[in-house]
Amino acid sequence: MQHGSMGKIRIVTNFLQKVWNEGSLDAVDLYLADHYTINHDPGDPWEGQTLTMSGYKDRLVQSRAMAPDQAFTLQKTLEGKDSVAVGWTWIGSHLGDIPGFPATGKKIAMSGLTIYDFQKLRLCGHWQVADRLSVYQHLVKG
Amino acid sequence: MQHGSMGKIRIVTNFLQKVWNEGSLDAVDLYLADHYTINHDPGDPWEGQTLTMSGYKDRLVQSRAMAPDQAFTLQKTLEGKDSVAVGWTWIGSHLGDIPGFPATGKKIAMSGLTIYDFQKLRLCGHWQVADRLSVYQHLVKG
Repeated sequence: MQHGSMGKIRIVTNFLQKVWNEGSLDAVDLYLADHYTINHDPGDPWEGQTLTMSGYKDRLVQSRAMAPDQAFTLQKTLEGKDSVAVGWTWIGSHLGDIPGFPATGKKIAMSGLTIYDFQKLRLCGHWQVADRLSVYQHLVKG
Repeated sequence: MQHGSMGKIRIVTNFLQKVWNEGSLDAVDLYLADHYTINHDPGDPWEGQTLTMSGYKDRLVQSRAMAPDQAFTLQKTLEGKDSVAVGWTWIGSHLGDIPGFPATGKKIAMSGLTIYDFQKLRLCGHWQVADRLSVYQHLVKG
């Protein structure tokens, strides 16, 4: 795959589709820089860490286990010089355990915003906040 | 005040300082367009509404009552053609009631991301997500 002619928003769109919606480990090799830093992401177990490709793949597999049918949809996009901001919605079926919440099979939904940093045309980190309270409240309500 | 020579990130920085950190109602007149739309902001009672200047001032006064000493600090900024994305941290003292949580006097903190839309050099709306779960968990823990 050639990214050369693609805008950064298109790259993030394809990255979210292939890597996070479809769970493709091969796609990680195409979109990520050698190292990827999770600069800010409250609630993410890898927050603050700089991951290798292999570390990122572990995070992907473990994160997707809670909702293997998950889907991100971009709602807002904004392209800067070395980064892209995206506002997104997310839905999935709660089929894997979350700390404190064994799998319920419920549909869960949230939204969030992410700023992705680029190194040339590959993703090298993010600063993200998700509306985890909506998920928590939905699961607590039973 | 003249905004003409300022970049949009500078405008958002000053807007957050004057309007949200200091609570200046006069500053609302300087930074906002005639109408301001809260496109997405889970947990904000005005989510989905388009506010007049006066409506926005009501929202400001009511929102700041929970933590009158609140302070936003920008951590990440990204400027696009008609919008700006900012990642921020926020601290304040819980001195006013929140639904379900009477004032505790505790220091509370959260982070979030906002995409502000501009009409010429005035703010006309936002798409925002805040990490409300961290605040909730801090208050529940007592």
